[in-house]
Amino acid sequence: MAPLELDAAIVSSLVNIRYLTGFSGSNALLLVTHTEATLLTDPRYTIQAKAETAETGIKAVIAKGSLEEALTPRLSKLRRIGFENNRVSYRTWEHLQRNLPLNAGLRPLGGVIEQRRMVKSAGEIAAIRESVRINSQAFAAALTRFRAGMSETDFAAEIEHQMRLLGAEKPSFDTIVAFRERSALPHASPGCTRLDGNGLLLVDMGTFRGGYASDMTRCIHLGKPGAKTRSLYRAVLEAQLAGLDAVAPGASAEDIDSATRRVLRKHGLAKAFIHSAGHGLGLEIHEAPRLGRGEKTILRAGMAITVEPGAYIEGAGGVRIEDTVLVTANGVEVLTPTSKELVIL
Amino acid sequence: MAPLELDAAIVSSLVNIRYLTGFSGSNALLLVTHTEATLLTDPRYTIQAKAETAETGIKAVIAKGSLEEALTPRLSKLRRIGFENNRVSYRTWEHLQRNLPLNAGLRPLGGVIEQRRMVKSAGEIAAIRESVRINSQAFAAALTRFRAGMSETDFAAEIEHQMRLLGAEKPSFDTIVAFRERSALPHASPGCTRLDGNGLLLVDMGTFRGGYASDMTRCIHLGKPGAKTRSLYRAVLEAQLAGLDAVAPGASAEDIDSATRRVLRKHGLAKAFIHSAGHGLGLEIHEAPRLGRGEKTILRAGMAITVEPGAYIEGAGGVRIEDTVLVTANGVEVLTPTSKELVIL
Repeated sequence: MAPLELDAAIVSSLVNIRYLTGFSGSNALLLVTHTEATLLTDPRYTIQAKAETAETGIKAVIAKGSLEEALTPRLSKLRRIGFENNRVSYRTWEHLQRNLPLNAGLRPLGGVIEQRRMVKSAGEIAAIRESVRINSQAFAAALTRFRAGMSETDFAAEIEHQMRLLGAEKPSFDTIVAFRERSALPHASPGCTRLDGNGLLLVDMGTFRGGYASDMTRCIHLGKPGAKTRSLYRAVLEAQLAGLDAVAPGASAEDIDSATRRVLRKHGLAKAFIHSAGHGLGLEIHEAPRLGRGEKTILRAGMAITVEPGAYIEGAGGVRIEDTVLVTANGVEVLTPTSKELVIL
Repeated sequence: MAPLELDAAIVSSLVNIRYLTGFSGSNALLLVTHTEATLLTDPRYTIQAKAETAETGIKAVIAKGSLEEALTPRLSKLRRIGFENNRVSYRTWEHLQRNLPLNAGLRPLGGVIEQRRMVKSAGEIAAIRESVRINSQAFAAALTRFRAGMSETDFAAEIEHQMRLLGAEKPSFDTIVAFRERSALPHASPGCTRLDGNGLLLVDMGTFRGGYASDMTRCIHLGKPGAKTRSLYRAVLEAQLAGLDAVAPGASAEDIDSATRRVLRKHGLAKAFIHSAGHGLGLEIHEAPRLGRGEKTILRAGMAITVEPGAYIEGAGGVRIEDTVLVTANGVEVLTPTSKELVIL
């Protein structure tokens, strides 16, 4: 907090609290001063808060009423108090503001904790590796259980069950299983469409394991793909490989996006690529940095990101290929072990 | 908006946007004026936004950059603009504030949409019924697949798989499966504890189906329960039935909490009941009203709520019994069909 010239910081984002303290409950505030850290939570978490913060020296306080009210007396000798302006609701800010001691002021923390979270520790990288491994294993296991005539929802259920059996806590986002023209909807929810006959099938899936996210997209083709589909697939694969090639410490986040976009433009697919090329991930499925146009963040060794260009043709279908990767001292390590050949079923 | 004396309202909460427009994507802003409603989203949702708002007359606008920037020119003739002060982050508020036209001002909407969401429409009630039905069926199906020696996580995975097979989109929260002394942690994550030998097993589970939540807690005993466990269970059941009895239009939210708390106090368990007696549910698993101390909201026919007293003895175990119920014109309809006998396996 010294460079921010703060006496204290109030952390209200649960994921940032988990990052800083290890506490994983659903209701908490964290007050950090120069000398101590105090975690406030409610009586449901008395036992859990004690257990999860045991090794950190953080003081866990159980509040009977609202956490904001329990916080107020603890602010009495503080003047410059940081708050998470990008996380706190306007109403919570008002509440904090109203209960400040005389002479004290709230100062924006910005995304200072999120910035710090971008570069992962060895322990975090190990957790992400494990999450990625389980996710790819679940995909392989679900493929062996694929049956023509299943619905999109059935196949998504099978994928998520395999994740769970392999030790995932839960999917890191709603699994996408999208067949034929529905694959052109980059965020399609699985529906009752039957996976039968000939067509392109897009699967985007991720797990949380040990609290850490993984993320992967692969395409499957039921029956023999036509020439158009093959060339669409090859173009996106070329773009994805170009994106991976561009990942290195010192590159900017937008460089990765440009590298993928350049390839798709060459194939006449510039307008078909309607999202950014990737994102950081960790305790959240979407974290900084975003790999998109205008994003100047410089990649550093230890960052975990996705590289996921796609091309979507309304009424026909879409292709996306996505790996979870690690920025290393020398360039990139692709964590996702799953083959990027178009799977033919 | 007339009673609020507003020219327009900016809705930024995705769940409130879904409630008002039907759009279920992950990035949107909604601008409502006296004459029209405009939904702003990004190119990933071009097709979906068109489809989901087709029957509403809402104009869907696809923004290439940030949604806040796309919103700005649309505010030009408006003066009194409502914003969701309880949902918007401080940073978003700052952004909106900075881009307001001259003479315009932001005014807090409070929880006006959340208040409206408390009383469910016939369509919403049908969706909640279906969600509750699937949830109870999934519990029954998972019980037939229970095997001694499974871990808490295995059983949670089985429960969630059954939900999916029965047509749920996903669990409405992280399924709780907590054995023996872990059942005293009201929000325990399932772990590697083996479900073997004798002991109390608490299961708290819910689904989303058609976007709507269900929520149920039941207790199981492996082997024959001892006298202490039986009497703990009976006390919580008595409290739950008292809570259900208290549900009626005209009762206040805190009345339900008091009714359950009174029974537990009589059994010397006042301090063992460490959360509130229930909550509203719908598009979110936790909605207004909260059934807790000091909550003055008056229950009305059409509200969907949970009734879920519990008692937790640190180091020993805990019992919670929870149904999803509907406030009706005459009192209460318990939607959850699952028996409340202590299940002995």
